[in-house]
Amino acid sequence: MKIALMMENSQAGKNATVLNELNTVVLPQGDAVFNVGMSDENDHHLTYIHLGIMASILINSKAVDFVVAGCGTGQGAIMSLNIHPGVNCGYCLEPSDAFLFNQINNGNALALAFAKGYGWGAELNVRFIFEKAFTTGERGKGYPLERAVPQQQNANILNDVKAAVVKENYLDTLRAIDPDLIKTAVSGERFQQCFFENCQDAEIEAYVKSVLN
Amino acid sequence: MKIALMMENSQAGKNATVLNELNTVVLPQGDAVFNVGMSDENDHHLTYIHLGIMASILINSKAVDFVVAGCGTGQGAIMSLNIHPGVNCGYCLEPSDAFLFNQINNGNALALAFAKGYGWGAELNVRFIFEKAFTTGERGKGYPLERAVPQQQNANILNDVKAAVVKENYLDTLRAIDPDLIKTAVSGERFQQCFFENCQDAEIEAYVKSVLN
Amino acid sequence: MKIALMMENSQAGKNATVLNELNTVVLPQGDAVFNVGMSDENDHHLTYIHLGIMASILINSKAVDFVVAGCGTGQGAIMSLNIHPGVNCGYCLEPSDAFLFNQINNGNALALAFAKGYGWGAELNVRFIFEKAFTTGERGKGYPLERAVPQQQNANILNDVKAAVVKENYLDTLRAIDPDLIKTAVSGERFQQCFFENCQDAEIEAYVKSVLN
Amino acid sequence: MKIALMMENSQAGKNATVLNELNTVVLPQGDAVFNVGMSDENDHHLTYIHLGIMASILINSKAVDFVVAGCGTGQGAIMSLNIHPGVNCGYCLEPSDAFLFNQINNGNALALAFAKGYGWGAELNVRFIFEKAFTTGERGKGYPLERAVPQQQNANILNDVKAAVVKENYLDTLRAIDPDLIKTAVSGERFQQCFFENCQDAEIEAYVKSVLN
Repeated sequence: MKIALMMENSQAGKNATVLNELNTVVLPQGDAVFNVGMSDENDHHLTYIHLGIMASILINSKAVDFVVAGCGTGQGAIMSLNIHPGVNCGYCLEPSDAFLFNQINNGNALALAFAKGYGWGAELNVRFIFEKAFTTGERGKGYPLERAVPQQQNANILNDVKAAVVKENYLDTLRAIDPDLIKTAVSGERFQQCFFENCQDAEIEAYVKSVLN
Repeated sequence: MKIALMMENSQAGKNATVLNELNTVVLPQGDAVFNVGMSDENDHHLTYIHLGIMASILINSKAVDFVVAGCGTGQGAIMSLNIHPGVNCGYCLEPSDAFLFNQINNGNALALAFAKGYGWGAELNVRFIFEKAFTTGERGKGYPLERAVPQQQNANILNDVKAAVVKENYLDTLRAIDPDLIKTAVSGERFQQCFFENCQDAEIEAYVKSVLN
Repeated sequence: MKIALMMENSQAGKNATVLNELNTVVLPQGDAVFNVGMSDENDHHLTYIHLGIMASILINSKAVDFVVAGCGTGQGAIMSLNIHPGVNCGYCLEPSDAFLFNQINNGNALALAFAKGYGWGAELNVRFIFEKAFTTGERGKGYPLERAVPQQQNANILNDVKAAVVKENYLDTLRAIDPDLIKTAVSGERFQQCFFENCQDAEIEAYVKSVLN
Repeated sequence: MKIALMMENSQAGKNATVLNELNTVVLPQGDAVFNVGMSDENDHHLTYIHLGIMASILINSKAVDFVVAGCGTGQGAIMSLNIHPGVNCGYCLEPSDAFLFNQINNGNALALAFAKGYGWGAELNVRFIFEKAFTTGERGKGYPLERAVPQQQNANILNDVKAAVVKENYLDTLRAIDPDLIKTAVSGERFQQCFFENCQDAEIEAYVKSVLN
């Protein structure tokens, strides 16, 4: 699985810690990790708004399979990511949140709180969340198992409703956004490396190139 | 303030308890409460998908000012509500979530978890959440206060991005959704009473009437 | 390791679930589990007071190495267990609590909340707690590692202070308690089986026998 | 009510914040607050062991009615305070913990976690905890109300068991502790001011004076 980690300005100083926990948990099983947001407080300035756009592009182009995002409380990140078609982001404060979100909602992104509740020893909680998010096997099987059918149906209907509400053509959803936001969202070097090496959609690739030129 | 409470099938049995706590907290200060979802397990069957549509209609028509929604984990509800234009829904597990969401994100909906973590004494937590959600004065002032400017800017940009991503005409976002979902969402008696008595948008009113006929 | 699980009357109905999670986590690595409290609501009636006495006897006689206890909020259990010499009980709501308590405080008991916060999916949280309580290797190594020395010193001083405050002779601490409480605490069949098969202290064994006769 | 706040070395830097929240909540209703632990990182060095001794002396001499203590995780503080006769300390992570502990367990001390989970905005949680700990009226009434009788009985039996386990004479519990620990515990200027101005037990007062000479 290809996993993107993306952090914004307010908690950029914690990126090294969070990235380390993510790598520790998922690299041994062969997942790939892309650290596409801010790597420290002096990095290229991103807000939770940009994280949503970045997640939209990476998920819809199939450059990555899953996004781990967050902000101070996680609320900005979850709202921002969930605006975009194809991105289904859950909120995750402790390990069983990750497990249940995988089994019931079967989304492709998690928003964590990297400041609120993030005190001493919080790196342990982040590690344990990643363990339950990424190392517990097949997703979308329902929890409890006997509730799988309605849970899967609702997850599918959620996708249908979002597809109905947003603009019909995916690129139109990006083109309608303030171009400065898009430009900032895609201008990070690590973002571009992840995107251009893994993008599986020629139209989205052409669009991102056009933004950068 | 006009506040709608909406609960879906999996936790409908807790509606009386949650409604009682909401009433206890907000009625004394003159807010109005509309219990527009399921009132018990035998009521008109709604899922978190319907809650999103209901919130969309009530918020965009200014029939209510704020929506309290939820489901088992709250994840389905937050994702479903946040699909829709004009609905900005936070996730709320304990009182300071509500306070911070109000001050920083200044949204108009909260998703609660009515099953996960909802054990003995949970009605106290619900009450304390409502206290911080609805009785602590002006919203959107930032927290801490000196961060108000960027926080308010980001909240506004979030609205702009969602307005860009969704269909341009609000009613088109509803018309594109499976009509059966819409019909179920608006067919509750208490929902209709709330909507028709408080709707401030003639076009949305006409649309809902057309769905019901 | 020999682990005793003990639950009281208010949450006895959850014993099968909690026991199953404990067994699932620790039996594969060769630990032994003794379910010495109430097994259902009709079992021999115990309160958190009795759990403290049971933990005292099992720990001080070395019949078990670790006790998992709890009550509705866990507060009664933690206070009751911590009264007794030799019992050092932490409070555990989520997995990192268990990990940190092991590494920093290195106690021999945990109190869980089996009603407050114990909602839907809580068996997952219980399982994940047991994973971090019992399958993460050596205890008492400090967290972070560089704080090991003062943390170990304080854990030792805590033991010294408790040893100073309680009566000098261990059996005197039991003999001073209302005999009816002791009798109820030791009268369960599963408790007795665990105790008599594993007790490593002849004086405590003789005392318990005298209580039962 | 007379409330003592006591913090140890690892989180002393947060004392001003916590004290401010406590004062904000309780001073308007006429409670008195005594800040008897460390006021900053350079203050007279205390560990959670000393906090237990300080709480023991202040509670047993009736110098204060309630103690708010804590450490990094709160586990050291709760175990240390609960060693001592007459001190019944609960663990408190969020507001409803405080409310339930008051109504069910009716103790006289709370241990908070001042590092674990103490992230951004944690001062709000501390404030909301103090609101529910100190401004919700009479304690010990049971929760729910119909469970008052067995809850009160168990709280009383807990006191009886602790009184049985500890040494019979209160001062003997202090005299048996390493004198250096006692001396450090009572040597703070603010502790002494609180103690000597409010102590209602001549024997304990004489004992503390003898330690200081």
